[in-house]
Amino acid sequence: MLLQTIDSPADLKKLSRDQLPQLAQELRDEITRVCAIGGGHLASSLGAVELILAMHYVFNSPRDRLLFDVGHQAYAHKFLTGRRDRMHTIKKEGGLSGFTKVSESEHDAITVGHASTSLANALGMAVARDALGQDYKVVAVIGDGSLTGGMALAALNQIGFQQRNMLIVLNDNEMSISENVGALNRYMRTLQVQRWFQEAEGAGKRAVSALSKPLADMISRAKGSARHFFDPASDNPFKAMGVRYVGPVNGHDLNELLYLFEKLGDLEGPTLLHVVTTKGKGLTYAEEDPITWHGPGRFDPLTGESFKSSSYSWSNAFGDAMIELAAQDPRLFVITPAMREGSGLVKYSQTHPHRYIDVGIAEDVAVTVGAGMALRGIRPVVAIYSTFLQRAYDQVVHDVAIENLPVIFAIDRAGIVGADGATHNGVFDLAYLRSIPNVSVLLPRNTAELRGMFKAALEHGGPVAIRYPRGNTDRVPEGTWPEIAWGSWERLTPTPEGGVTVLAGGKALEYAQKATGDLPEVGVVNARFVKPLDTTMLREIARTSRAIVTVEDGQRMGGFGSAVLEAVSDLDLDIKVRVLGLPDSFFEHAEVASVHAQAGIDAQAIRTVLAELGVDVPVGI
Amino acid sequence: MLLQTIDSPADLKKLSRDQLPQLAQELRDEITRVCAIGGGHLASSLGAVELILAMHYVFNSPRDRLLFDVGHQAYAHKFLTGRRDRMHTIKKEGGLSGFTKVSESEHDAITVGHASTSLANALGMAVARDALGQDYKVVAVIGDGSLTGGMALAALNQIGFQQRNMLIVLNDNEMSISENVGALNRYMRTLQVQRWFQEAEGAGKRAVSALSKPLADMISRAKGSARHFFDPASDNPFKAMGVRYVGPVNGHDLNELLYLFEKLGDLEGPTLLHVVTTKGKGLTYAEEDPITWHGPGRFDPLTGESFKSSSYSWSNAFGDAMIELAAQDPRLFVITPAMREGSGLVKYSQTHPHRYIDVGIAEDVAVTVGAGMALRGIRPVVAIYSTFLQRAYDQVVHDVAIENLPVIFAIDRAGIVGADGATHNGVFDLAYLRSIPNVSVLLPRNTAELRGMFKAALEHGGPVAIRYPRGNTDRVPEGTWPEIAWGSWERLTPTPEGGVTVLAGGKALEYAQKATGDLPEVGVVNARFVKPLDTTMLREIARTSRAIVTVEDGQRMGGFGSAVLEAVSDLDLDIKVRVLGLPDSFFEHAEVASVHAQAGIDAQAIRTVLAELGVDVPVGI
Repeated sequence: MLLQTIDSPADLKKLSRDQLPQLAQELRDEITRVCAIGGGHLASSLGAVELILAMHYVFNSPRDRLLFDVGHQAYAHKFLTGRRDRMHTIKKEGGLSGFTKVSESEHDAITVGHASTSLANALGMAVARDALGQDYKVVAVIGDGSLTGGMALAALNQIGFQQRNMLIVLNDNEMSISENVGALNRYMRTLQVQRWFQEAEGAGKRAVSALSKPLADMISRAKGSARHFFDPASDNPFKAMGVRYVGPVNGHDLNELLYLFEKLGDLEGPTLLHVVTTKGKGLTYAEEDPITWHGPGRFDPLTGESFKSSSYSWSNAFGDAMIELAAQDPRLFVITPAMREGSGLVKYSQTHPHRYIDVGIAEDVAVTVGAGMALRGIRPVVAIYSTFLQRAYDQVVHDVAIENLPVIFAIDRAGIVGADGATHNGVFDLAYLRSIPNVSVLLPRNTAELRGMFKAALEHGGPVAIRYPRGNTDRVPEGTWPEIAWGSWERLTPTPEGGVTVLAGGKALEYAQKATGDLPEVGVVNARFVKPLDTTMLREIARTSRAIVTVEDGQRMGGFGSAVLEAVSDLDLDIKVRVLGLPDSFFEHAEVASVHAQAGIDAQAIRTVLAELGVDVPVGI
Repeated sequence: MLLQTIDSPADLKKLSRDQLPQLAQELRDEITRVCAIGGGHLASSLGAVELILAMHYVFNSPRDRLLFDVGHQAYAHKFLTGRRDRMHTIKKEGGLSGFTKVSESEHDAITVGHASTSLANALGMAVARDALGQDYKVVAVIGDGSLTGGMALAALNQIGFQQRNMLIVLNDNEMSISENVGALNRYMRTLQVQRWFQEAEGAGKRAVSALSKPLADMISRAKGSARHFFDPASDNPFKAMGVRYVGPVNGHDLNELLYLFEKLGDLEGPTLLHVVTTKGKGLTYAEEDPITWHGPGRFDPLTGESFKSSSYSWSNAFGDAMIELAAQDPRLFVITPAMREGSGLVKYSQTHPHRYIDVGIAEDVAVTVGAGMALRGIRPVVAIYSTFLQRAYDQVVHDVAIENLPVIFAIDRAGIVGADGATHNGVFDLAYLRSIPNVSVLLPRNTAELRGMFKAALEHGGPVAIRYPRGNTDRVPEGTWPEIAWGSWERLTPTPEGGVTVLAGGKALEYAQKATGDLPEVGVVNARFVKPLDTTMLREIARTSRAIVTVEDGQRMGGFGSAVLEAVSDLDLDIKVRVLGLPDSFFEHAEVASVHAQAGIDAQAIRTVLAELGVDVPVGI
């Protein structure tokens, strides 16, 4: 194997150009093998093999800075930059990150996981380089999906204005994680059509191979509908933004890529190279269904048979609740920022297609589209991962909360998420949401409660955040809509007079129950409202318990425990409070349970604290 | 006066077209008068007079929804929609808001203050209208400055994709608050050049009048420099984004505007009308210097003489510190998102032009450009208002904090800002920043401390937020750089054994000192680090004081007081803590001192709490 000889990009450069196709094939096989064993970002990494190979062959990392937007397509980059032997550890505790990470390798230019950040980072690097009188190259690879994000477009606008030397590689695979949306994306298809026409008229017809099924579909749609038609004209928005445009080219044609990187790398000012790739390239089942194969779990690499369990996730529970609620309430409308699959909305989008919108990877737009709807009689539900709602924090404050608009936030992947690591942990939401006036924050403990909460939120009115974790939950029959009194906690096990009460909601409540099942001195309360707090029950607890322990799957600084401390101080209650939550640091990728143990919020940690509070705790759980 | 006859848009429609120029002049005079008396957004409101007049003449508000991005250009809109008699109360307590506000008038389609939100709101409204089978019009006015914001560009991309009926009016006045930046803005100039050439070749030459001085400058610059040249070609990015493009037209030509609104209002799909206006139109001194006249204080309307005091603001203190620090440290670089004037950076940008960048109204880009620089050896200072940093929350977490990058945030306008009201209050920063690992949060009490903190932040390394209020501060000699030990609080007045200690930083510290000067039982500590807390001093206080009172100019939920409560719980200290901060609601525009009194954080409120804690407090201060 050629790959075995490559410990750094310097080794790659020793190969002849003729050997590169073989190396590309080896990389594909290895990427597939690694993902089959452990799961991973398969389809996008397969699509970027030639791109990354050509980049490392022409440019000189780490001197030149190669930035990968999102960073999930960079498996080939990791293979070529000294991490070959550790690729099987990817996304595992103590192993490699699933994304690029500055602290992992000098070849990783940015630490990343969220989309659309590469261009602003690249601009900052180019400005720094020029300010310090240096002359390395800055090359950013960004997908067409990431380019639907506003900060990427705004950065592009500044890049065109600043005219610093840099190369942007637009890796156009015609989709983000879901099918791609947005007019720019549709525009990119016309660029392909143009090229196809040009080449068909000329001598060679090789570009036809770059034409994909969605593209062909687009052409026939455009013919059939004046409304969806638009001119394949020369209105190139990249040129309008002051960026030199080259393309589109076949992103699997190594010779073309090598030629272009050599030519374009030395140009003055910013250049955008539009490269068309196929997600899942080289693996038939992944090419045919790149959405399923975006980030599969373990699978059989030969057959493409997935080892996925047929489990019922919180996302599924949410999607099912939406299908039923939308049938009951004609005002309901669901918004996703490019996360139809992840948020459990595939079935919903088919059942209620006219009350569903995907706004692309643009969380700020998702929230403010919701605000606009709420102002006009619709009850929008913004389905969003906790970590991505961070990108719309101001929109929650400014566009939703100030006017107390009835926008519901369905916050998925809250708390520690596990394998995706620090960039994806949804651990700040309790702290940053509860400080916003008018916003309620709820944590369901199971599917029935989730459903009851959405129903209650529709009745309540103002902005409501309902937060649930990654992972599986229970199924309940259709029509299950338990009453949830607004702001009410629920006592699950009684606290004897002078005992200790544990307050926890959502995922943390599971730990609380597990920790205390054999402890008669300790009662457990389902603190399902982080805001508003159930101060009636809190007063009663303070009167009868000798101590409170709060537990949360979120940053303890400013979080739920902090809210309880505030209430105890405000109400002048006389009770000791111990707060368990995630300490003040970022947690790397690992199993969720492992992180919770490290962080000190699991059942064992709760028992330890209870013992410190004088509870008689037998060894073990 | 015609204006006296207009109590609603219905009255406006009773006028003949011939009368509109007179009404426009009356509106200009009234806007100038109102701003001269009380200050206000003069230049942009003068520039939008004909635009707003024509909109209300053609469209039917409130049935049709007219959205104004930022909302500060809408004074004419307020005059025409029943608020004529209250215009003198604008930005004053109990009076009209300086922006549009849903709860103020049925004619105000959105509550706003931050830029770039109108397009996503408009899309949401159009989707809601279609979902509910209604048929009103949605018209959004957005400035060229607001269009440098990513969420506006991302929304435009979705608007082009969705093809809902709506009209976007691009109010192109060639600047945001500072001079405008961004390639799209430069591109808009070429559209004007094109039109000019077309019309010059044809019969009429009237469009020449639309040519402004910056435009003429641009043309000569483009001729002189290949690097800054770009083609006035047909690469129209709006068309590429699937939006019908019409323009550019003279935004002060009422007939043309009326004609176009009538024609364009009924078109299928989204249309963008590019209107060129002059900021400050009709008022010579404002036209000549629209930056100064963007939002002046009181002035003489005849001479344009400003009644501004020659006071020294916190922004000035920051700018001066940067000038000196940049001379000492070649790594320092200042980034602003379109707030050169407001952030006190005019002189800095002239003194260190190569270590200064304005990235437009794109706060997310500002922070991540900083991250990119910090990764490459630069020490960036992101100068940003507290309320606008909310728009880059995820970038602080994801792009800066995870890798502990040395980015310094100079957070201006922190706490209650007064006349700009709820959208502009910078009250969440303590809560949302302190929960982010690696981030330090500092509050200077005066200019010397501000300077010492920036110096210490450069030495410290990781992400540091230095937060200071709107308003004036003291001057200190050049070269003043007091040592600030990292994480140290400062005892200002001693607490006797068994007394009460007040902890406060920044603006709140002034109140604490004022409240306690005559109270020997009470000591005051300058809690200048909200993170990290000075736990050594906190332990000592808990040992010797009988109670702690914390005071902060920020949301009390999750803020500084909450941090003290957490520390007291964690360290198992036995001391009563009372937390004063802004309660859980939004505060409208009013004098800062008035809001602080309402909110219960001023000197009087502190004395009340001290009295409740048993301190012997004489009546009055």
